[in-house]
Amino acid sequence: MSARVGTLLFVGLGLIGGSLAAALRGTGFAARMTAFNRNRATLDFALGAGLIDAAPASLEEAIAEADLIVVGVPTLSVGRIFAAIRAHARPDVLITDVASVKGSVVAAAREAFGAVPPRLIPGHPIAGAEKSGVEAARADLFVRHRVILTPLPESDPEALATIDAMWRLTGAEVVRMDVAAHDRVLAMTSHLPHLLAFALVDSLARQPASEEIFRCAAGGFRDFTRIASSDVVMWRDIALANRDALLGALDGFTQTLDAVRAAVASGDGEELEQVFGRARAARERYLRWLERGESR
Amino acid sequence: MSARVGTLLFVGLGLIGGSLAAALRGTGFAARMTAFNRNRATLDFALGAGLIDAAPASLEEAIAEADLIVVGVPTLSVGRIFAAIRAHARPDVLITDVASVKGSVVAAAREAFGAVPPRLIPGHPIAGAEKSGVEAARADLFVRHRVILTPLPESDPEALATIDAMWRLTGAEVVRMDVAAHDRVLAMTSHLPHLLAFALVDSLARQPASEEIFRCAAGGFRDFTRIASSDVVMWRDIALANRDALLGALDGFTQTLDAVRAAVASGDGEELEQVFGRARAARERYLRWLERGESR
Repeated sequence: MSARVGTLLFVGLGLIGGSLAAALRGTGFAARMTAFNRNRATLDFALGAGLIDAAPASLEEAIAEADLIVVGVPTLSVGRIFAAIRAHARPDVLITDVASVKGSVVAAAREAFGAVPPRLIPGHPIAGAEKSGVEAARADLFVRHRVILTPLPESDPEALATIDAMWRLTGAEVVRMDVAAHDRVLAMTSHLPHLLAFALVDSLARQPASEEIFRCAAGGFRDFTRIASSDVVMWRDIALANRDALLGALDGFTQTLDAVRAAVASGDGEELEQVFGRARAARERYLRWLERGESR
Repeated sequence: MSARVGTLLFVGLGLIGGSLAAALRGTGFAARMTAFNRNRATLDFALGAGLIDAAPASLEEAIAEADLIVVGVPTLSVGRIFAAIRAHARPDVLITDVASVKGSVVAAAREAFGAVPPRLIPGHPIAGAEKSGVEAARADLFVRHRVILTPLPESDPEALATIDAMWRLTGAEVVRMDVAAHDRVLAMTSHLPHLLAFALVDSLARQPASEEIFRCAAGGFRDFTRIASSDVVMWRDIALANRDALLGALDGFTQTLDAVRAAVASGDGEELEQVFGRARAARERYLRWLERGESR
């Protein structure tokens, strides 16, 4: 089969970009894969591991020869890359990204290009791991994971079909969502939990005798706080880029938490049992859904 | 070697009691192990699995013949068991418990016995698992886990030494702590995280289209909310029994969260980077400590 695209360029090659390159290797999707990254060691690793075919010396050069660009830099740096694309890319270049917030990507595109280019399809693979960086890349990272695409009314159907096809080749389940809906849902399931985990660990760490406190923590605490080991700059950017939806999710959560606090303070066991019971039942439904997903 | 105690009775036989029985089997610590549980199937399982030697027909009978009683019922039911012990136990009976809150156990003892019996040593093994119930019991559940004993000034040193020896036989690391310090520390590392996880999942579950929301959740969400699958009655009891320390921990956390909210709202990336960075560093220290603990 002939390749769907000529040169596929990754700008910013981390866990996600590296895993996408690994997953596409051998599928014939791209005739050639290249990458640009600020850290040269990342590119040397990717070349050595056979993830990419070439690493052009400059961002400009890399962009100029690309047919499809996957932008994988931290959320707040996406605009800078869009500006370089506008300045150096072929007019018919196809663009997608993997940022965790889509509203800010669309806004950055409007600012860089004047309007969102029809051949820019914003995307977000819901996958990750405790590790980050291209060294942790795995060809199966996206298998049975969701990839959310958030096309706009002006999006080019053929561009959308190509990005859709690219992700399906990785084993992902591709779904489409409205930009604002994506950002609301991700604020609730991902951005807010990260904020809570960071805030909890920081609030404990600032206690006197905090080491003794951590020493008494059990396995539940380790799991609850795992996401507090996430990359600091990436999550700072996400919190700032998705501000409105994140504040909305936080305020919804705070309302529930206030009710729980009042129940604890007044000794209202019935209310606590209801909240805990509803939560437990919802999580069991969620786990059953995950299991069904994994047996497909 | 001769047994340290004659008949060891478990009142309430779940994951913790069952695992303690399994760990003590073959150590010669107790000449005989018995159990009483409301659910007869639990006792039949424990007898069949060889965890206990006998299951007396009534609580009174079980208590009357016991030399050491391990109370393993939900926190708010401990007082009822203490009352039965007062009515039916031998005068020199040794008592301990495994409840997650120690202040309420001491208060229940004062109420049932008039004063805390010197031969009652409150205890709390920091171990657990996603599963509960005696069927999930494992002889190695306590290996390299902390067991916190909270003896009082009036505690009998020989009683304390016996309970200490019992837990060391399971492979646990036994530490001693003040009752109030235990309850404060556990509020921060365990009770508060449970409250937050329950509140978060409930707040998501009550959204319109909540199933779609859960479907977009990634692995980080699954880990963050694992403790929301915990037993509802057990955690209702803990929240009520440790009210003051839990409210204190919650208010400390809320202060940090308010500061984080303000930083998000005002776009203060530097503040977010500081909070996230401190949290990440604290968790890395915690993980290194866990690793050192596991290589002992």
